[in-house]
Amino acid sequence: MELYLPYYKYFEQYGHKSDALFHALKAGILSGAISAGTKLPSSRQLALTYGLSRGTVNVVYERLHSQGFVRSVMGSGTFVIYHQLDVNDRSLKLLVNDAELSDWGKRLVEIELHRGQVSQVQRGSTDPISFTLGQVDVTHFPVHEWNRLMFGQVREQYKKESVDAYSSEGHAPLRESIAQHLHTFRGINVNADNVVIVNGSQQAIALIIQLLINEGDAVAMENPHYVGLRNAVHSVGGKVHAFPVDDEGIVFTTSTACSYKLLIVTPSRQFPKGVVLSMERRQRLLQWAEENNAYIIEDDYDSEFRHYGRANEPLKSLDRNGRVIYIGTFSKTMMQNIRLGYAVLPDALKNWFTIAKKVYERHPSSIIEQRALADFMNTGLYDRHIRRMKRIYRKKAELLLKLLTEQMQDVLALYPIDAGLHIYARWKGTEVEFEPFLRCCEQLNVQVADARASYLGDSEQAFCLGYAHLDEQQITDGVMRMVEARKNVGGVENIQSN
Amino acid sequence: MELYLPYYKYFEQYGHKSDALFHALKAGILSGAISAGTKLPSSRQLALTYGLSRGTVNVVYERLHSQGFVRSVMGSGTFVIYHQLDVNDRSLKLLVNDAELSDWGKRLVEIELHRGQVSQVQRGSTDPISFTLGQVDVTHFPVHEWNRLMFGQVREQYKKESVDAYSSEGHAPLRESIAQHLHTFRGINVNADNVVIVNGSQQAIALIIQLLINEGDAVAMENPHYVGLRNAVHSVGGKVHAFPVDDEGIVFTTSTACSYKLLIVTPSRQFPKGVVLSMERRQRLLQWAEENNAYIIEDDYDSEFRHYGRANEPLKSLDRNGRVIYIGTFSKTMMQNIRLGYAVLPDALKNWFTIAKKVYERHPSSIIEQRALADFMNTGLYDRHIRRMKRIYRKKAELLLKLLTEQMQDVLALYPIDAGLHIYARWKGTEVEFEPFLRCCEQLNVQVADARASYLGDSEQAFCLGYAHLDEQQITDGVMRMVEARKNVGGVENIQSN
Repeated sequence: MELYLPYYKYFEQYGHKSDALFHALKAGILSGAISAGTKLPSSRQLALTYGLSRGTVNVVYERLHSQGFVRSVMGSGTFVIYHQLDVNDRSLKLLVNDAELSDWGKRLVEIELHRGQVSQVQRGSTDPISFTLGQVDVTHFPVHEWNRLMFGQVREQYKKESVDAYSSEGHAPLRESIAQHLHTFRGINVNADNVVIVNGSQQAIALIIQLLINEGDAVAMENPHYVGLRNAVHSVGGKVHAFPVDDEGIVFTTSTACSYKLLIVTPSRQFPKGVVLSMERRQRLLQWAEENNAYIIEDDYDSEFRHYGRANEPLKSLDRNGRVIYIGTFSKTMMQNIRLGYAVLPDALKNWFTIAKKVYERHPSSIIEQRALADFMNTGLYDRHIRRMKRIYRKKAELLLKLLTEQMQDVLALYPIDAGLHIYARWKGTEVEFEPFLRCCEQLNVQVADARASYLGDSEQAFCLGYAHLDEQQITDGVMRMVEARKNVGGVENIQSN
Repeated sequence: MELYLPYYKYFEQYGHKSDALFHALKAGILSGAISAGTKLPSSRQLALTYGLSRGTVNVVYERLHSQGFVRSVMGSGTFVIYHQLDVNDRSLKLLVNDAELSDWGKRLVEIELHRGQVSQVQRGSTDPISFTLGQVDVTHFPVHEWNRLMFGQVREQYKKESVDAYSSEGHAPLRESIAQHLHTFRGINVNADNVVIVNGSQQAIALIIQLLINEGDAVAMENPHYVGLRNAVHSVGGKVHAFPVDDEGIVFTTSTACSYKLLIVTPSRQFPKGVVLSMERRQRLLQWAEENNAYIIEDDYDSEFRHYGRANEPLKSLDRNGRVIYIGTFSKTMMQNIRLGYAVLPDALKNWFTIAKKVYERHPSSIIEQRALADFMNTGLYDRHIRRMKRIYRKKAELLLKLLTEQMQDVLALYPIDAGLHIYARWKGTEVEFEPFLRCCEQLNVQVADARASYLGDSEQAFCLGYAHLDEQQITDGVMRMVEARKNVGGVENIQSN
């Protein structure tokens, strides 16, 4: 195909062949000149047209792919998929015409435009198996007991004196139960007054960032990290400084050149790598926060499920000076449909956090579930459920690890899974085979979670496998499909011809 | 008592006696130098000390009172009550020491410091009667039918395919039901795609403000208005320009000196005055929005309950060019504990609104209630409930209006109540008697909602009476207590000696 690209214009601007080609293509796609569904020229053709090496073209195609603009189909070529993003063309155009959003709104547009495309399982001839993250096993949930408590709260709802209908902090007995649970199971001594119920941990983290971070402020984070956190920082105009993660967790180095008011970490189980922050580094982080009057968000997203040994002490349990904000969630320990989480706040922030929440919600949401959950915790059902699920998840984790080790050890480096509900796998195969491998997985109806979007800047070739919601048969079949995908890898013109 | 005030310092700064005294006292109270519980000098004493008239001192005391810093106790004097605010001394001090909040956070502090004190019903010898706003009558709620639907959804919850667990816009069938309801009952033709479920209308309004308004931008509003809206504008650093309300609604005048991107109005029933926006003004507002590329938030907070005649056409039903964002809530039509509302968004804003919501919540809250409510609407139960409640609320409204007219006509100007769940009463009595009247009401255990906080700048002496949740006996007793309070008015040294 013939494709006119303003390549030379961008070459003048960027002074680098690869950048020029990338921006020329990206601008064309964004403007609609190269519309969704268009097949891009082969790397051979494009290389010839602009006097580039085919390797350069392939790098650019990879970069467009990682940003969700294009997709390669084995044996046919590279296609523009841009219109498949959430943001449809129409609203993008309206936006450009109206241009009425606030700076905050414009930052959301930026975030959205740079959002990676999540690959979808195609409905094919075989049942899809999705190793997606965030789902849990509900087949072992004590449905009968939970429903009984929910029924009770539904019956009471209309006659309840609406005392907690006015407390944005949430249902007081639930806050008590959480404080008690944290004391017993996580060694955190906290007053129920400092616990605030939220609609999932994302709400808590977004509000704290908004309370503390100005446009231009830098926030320290791990690399990789959960994309939602990065987006929350970008939404207020903050800059993300992402520090690498090694076997002991975040390698946080400060310089006099830059100071941080906020550090966001996942000490119990780094997301998504799964490594545990070493005790020495924990103490160093706390010391840093104290000396610099900074806050640390400890996102404890799934560490209730520790398969082996004793759970590490949370940062919060070591926090003597109110520098740590501890965030927990029930969406993983109960079920995904329950959007309840909590934040444990230092005294200095507690009132402001509540006031911030009230800007959006003067009243708490899901009050029936809050009340039923308080009963569920107080009657010991919650602890029993977690103990039971620990065993079940451990078995699944062991199976998945065993199969992957047996079958794919030569191409995958597997991170430890002594806790949590997913496994992080780094691709050890040749670099050019990773992308084709992911596409083969798609075609074989097995979905893995591409981990590259979790990185800021250079990313590792890696993916995550969430196994909590799958049974043993699905886990086994899923791995077998990956093995097959791996065998099929190769033969893709654009990539292989590098 | 002796009280040292930096009066002369502030007089130099402000050049006006009254302002100087006000700021000297306010600074003393805020800094803690004049602590909570302190009795302020009598107006006579203070006037003598600084060579002022007693009238000036009384005006200053009134101003401190209206901002929630002091409180007058009949026959004893004026007392500092500052520490009774939500914001306790400790966190204020920590704040001052730490001073780590973002600009957004600091604006919340400002808002909080200027928040008026809500008077509380004291538990006395008689049962308290509270004409508070926002509560509804649940004794006639179809509890049996609603609970049956809720039970059904509870049973399904753990096995539901979590399709809507991922749509921040909310449960699709509920969005369909709302679109249908709006079409049938409000004449609004809207696609379910443009309806987004929120956790109460405050969330919708706060997000829209955040999406559209930059620091320093002016937002046009009614005066008086709901304080939560004003706070949402102030939180993003926007300026509130409040336009007066007459018998036809907002008197919105634009000048070339100032342009607005956003106007927030309550056309169906002005909050809190209750007047209806005339058709001519509706058309003028729409025309203005079209010509100026501006948006209008139409907050339709309680107009489902129209006692007489046909409901007015909402602005949204006249909106041909996507300038109106229509906001509705179920907290008044169902029950207060159900924190569900919705926003109807123009195409140009719909995606950005959803993306904005996802910064805080990637998943919807209260999904069980969303599903049950969809069923409740689809089976006709919702419409039937509203029809029934209309009759019940009309009877209550007529009783309250009759009693107030009979008993207090000479001191109260009553605004029309052809819809809604509260009545707005302007004080016609002598100005100095209003404050003592409110305090007498408190002492007689009847709570009225002081309307002065709803004004920006000069406020009318007025209060609101929410009657929805009270039965006929309580309404009657409540009015009798007000009549008694009115008789008791007088004899307060600070005020009377003006």
